[in-house]
Amino acid sequence: MRRVSEARLVVVGDELLGGAHADLNSPELARQLARIGIAVRGVETVGDQEEVIRDAVESALSKASLVICTGGLGPTLDDVTRHGIARALGVELTRDSEALADVYAWYERRGRPMPPTNERQAFLPAGAVRIRNRVGTAPGFRVVAPGTATSLERWVVALPGPPSEMRVVLTEELIPWLQSSGRAREALGERRFHLFGLSESDFAQEVGEWMERSAEPRMGCSAKYGRLLVTLRSTCEGCEAQRLLEERAQAFRERFSVHIYGERDDRIEFVLGQALIETGIEVTLAESCTGGLAASLLTRVPGISSVFRQSFVTYSDEIKVTALGVPQELIASHGVVSAQVAESMARGAARVAGARLSIAITGIAGPGGDTPEKPLGLVWFATTFDGVTRCFERRFPPGERNWIRTLAAHQALFLGWRCLCDAGLAPPHSDD
Amino acid sequence: MRRVSEARLVVVGDELLGGAHADLNSPELARQLARIGIAVRGVETVGDQEEVIRDAVESALSKASLVICTGGLGPTLDDVTRHGIARALGVELTRDSEALADVYAWYERRGRPMPPTNERQAFLPAGAVRIRNRVGTAPGFRVVAPGTATSLERWVVALPGPPSEMRVVLTEELIPWLQSSGRAREALGERRFHLFGLSESDFAQEVGEWMERSAEPRMGCSAKYGRLLVTLRSTCEGCEAQRLLEERAQAFRERFSVHIYGERDDRIEFVLGQALIETGIEVTLAESCTGGLAASLLTRVPGISSVFRQSFVTYSDEIKVTALGVPQELIASHGVVSAQVAESMARGAARVAGARLSIAITGIAGPGGDTPEKPLGLVWFATTFDGVTRCFERRFPPGERNWIRTLAAHQALFLGWRCLCDAGLAPPHSDD
Repeated sequence: MRRVSEARLVVVGDELLGGAHADLNSPELARQLARIGIAVRGVETVGDQEEVIRDAVESALSKASLVICTGGLGPTLDDVTRHGIARALGVELTRDSEALADVYAWYERRGRPMPPTNERQAFLPAGAVRIRNRVGTAPGFRVVAPGTATSLERWVVALPGPPSEMRVVLTEELIPWLQSSGRAREALGERRFHLFGLSESDFAQEVGEWMERSAEPRMGCSAKYGRLLVTLRSTCEGCEAQRLLEERAQAFRERFSVHIYGERDDRIEFVLGQALIETGIEVTLAESCTGGLAASLLTRVPGISSVFRQSFVTYSDEIKVTALGVPQELIASHGVVSAQVAESMARGAARVAGARLSIAITGIAGPGGDTPEKPLGLVWFATTFDGVTRCFERRFPPGERNWIRTLAAHQALFLGWRCLCDAGLAPPHSDD
Repeated sequence: MRRVSEARLVVVGDELLGGAHADLNSPELARQLARIGIAVRGVETVGDQEEVIRDAVESALSKASLVICTGGLGPTLDDVTRHGIARALGVELTRDSEALADVYAWYERRGRPMPPTNERQAFLPAGAVRIRNRVGTAPGFRVVAPGTATSLERWVVALPGPPSEMRVVLTEELIPWLQSSGRAREALGERRFHLFGLSESDFAQEVGEWMERSAEPRMGCSAKYGRLLVTLRSTCEGCEAQRLLEERAQAFRERFSVHIYGERDDRIEFVLGQALIETGIEVTLAESCTGGLAASLLTRVPGISSVFRQSFVTYSDEIKVTALGVPQELIASHGVVSAQVAESMARGAARVAGARLSIAITGIAGPGGDTPEKPLGLVWFATTFDGVTRCFERRFPPGERNWIRTLAAHQALFLGWRCLCDAGLAPPHSDD
């Protein structure tokens, strides 16, 4: 048995190649595998054809000792991942009694007979061990590539495609198996930083030679929804690499402290939500252009109900007046997208909800509604915290409607979190 | 010059392999290319290293005459896609004056000097033509693989990685170029159906041999957020294939009419939103466990402000009473997740907002709050339309909090749309 340090993924599905939806499984696999020291080195996405699945599995097996396939384990005739893997390994499909029992049991728990088509899901490559899936009908499986000496064992794993099922099977079955069987190893050192309020270009300028390809540790940077993810990774094992990593991480913290909002969690809604829950500070939101998006992000946080009782989606001018008490004259004289209206919305929401922290958003997400003075992408924010109201203007790059809304919702939550930081109620790196 | 019918994608980014976020570019590329008759046959995701980018581009070029790379065009030192492509083609990087002018102009429009690091972005493989990017600093480019006869021209294209930039450059530059240069061709016939209320297993059982791999047209099926996407695709060109496609599509419509909510748009929020806008029916929402998610989906629809003025995020019991007029006794006797409370929320929201259609959601998204009688995943919905209130119970498979919330938000919008259908106010296939 050999410890695995690298994995390759084969993602199966015509619907993915056709663009029906994004592949959400690979990021989840990459994150969970990284935590047990296994790096994903490549992902190949292929269609629902036996031959291309076979080719992709063969190619991946030639480069890594762990190949994980997702998708194509369903009951329909276009689900042929098991066939493709069997052909890559040169074995037959055989009916697996444990897998069959799983599928029967799934239907039994729902008080329904198993449709005959689902029997297909119990056929696995010869020699495979089924992996339980308690949340769906498709069992996964793991199988050793035949003909390999034990010291060079190469595994092919198949997991179900629906992300909600994949995640459960991965977390509850595959990761524990990799750990308990001694295949996982310690992860190479890594530090992550999540930053707000810097563009990638500004960051590159600022960070200089820390980002050279030859630097130890190696730095990576990527942008998402107006945030930056900066990663420091050791490129080798050992105390010296560890020391360099710690030093660089500490220097990085000092240099970028006002921008860093987290080191573990990149989700500003979780950083803010946790800080609110810990301090018991009640929050509310008044949303116009984001139409409930900021509230829906914040309510992703488990336990948020202890500090969040209500929020306001006030889409029309009239409702801003009736629900939040924004003076009609303010809208008439400054326009609904203005500092004055944002401030009045924040104060009104804080008052109506009786919340210590209130965040308001009003902006132009388009299409239409923009003017030369108030262009597409202009968004005004305001926060009211313990009676003190502050406003902020952002001009997001003109883009499509939902992009601007998404940037605005994240910005709003960041501003709420900054209120807590400035008041000393949240640590600058709240999730350390 | 040859018409292109197949493309391969090379997606570049350590952050994608590391799981920092999902690849949203490939689905967008696949959809837009499919519309001009170019099928994406494979996607390979690789890290930010010159050698692996070079290998992936070489491999893709050996299988398809159009290779599109995304990502790795930024100003930072880990952006090496241009280097990898140059090495795959065996050419040098040279400074492109048009690309440089683009980057300068981008900063000039923002009234800022160009940081020196951004000059890197103007270095392109020799022979490349830059592709304009009006929304970001990274110009894309297209380059012919050297040494190929014109009749077998093979192209490598590089597009920026941030999805908001990629989409604009693709839509405004690459697709028009492919079309105007005669490289695109007519798409093979395809019909898509979006269904709600059927599991993939039930569907497989029902649809039988229509899904055989040898069937003409070929049927594909995938599940997402409780919806099914069913695709019929001709596997060859010609009148006969076209006739078979039309016949099967018509037979499919008749057999699954109660489940089909759209043929073009899979987004139930757009199907409902368009129907509301066309009929001028005002809508509101009262959300508990979904915390604004249903409203945020519905407000993605441009022009929704003509029928949507406000909605309610009533997270606590108390706010359901004060904001919507739900009787306290109803909550005490039936529990907050119940048919009675859902109905009362829907009626209250319709009354307060003065809306003809109102949709309410109250459920148990966890973690915690569940009981044997009211398990995790139980959600009650109610709709009030022209004064008539109906309720619906769904028991979603136990899963993580945000999964249940997402299913519930989509289900709620579907129920709203069914109200319009049942009243004859929306066509069963509203987006045909």
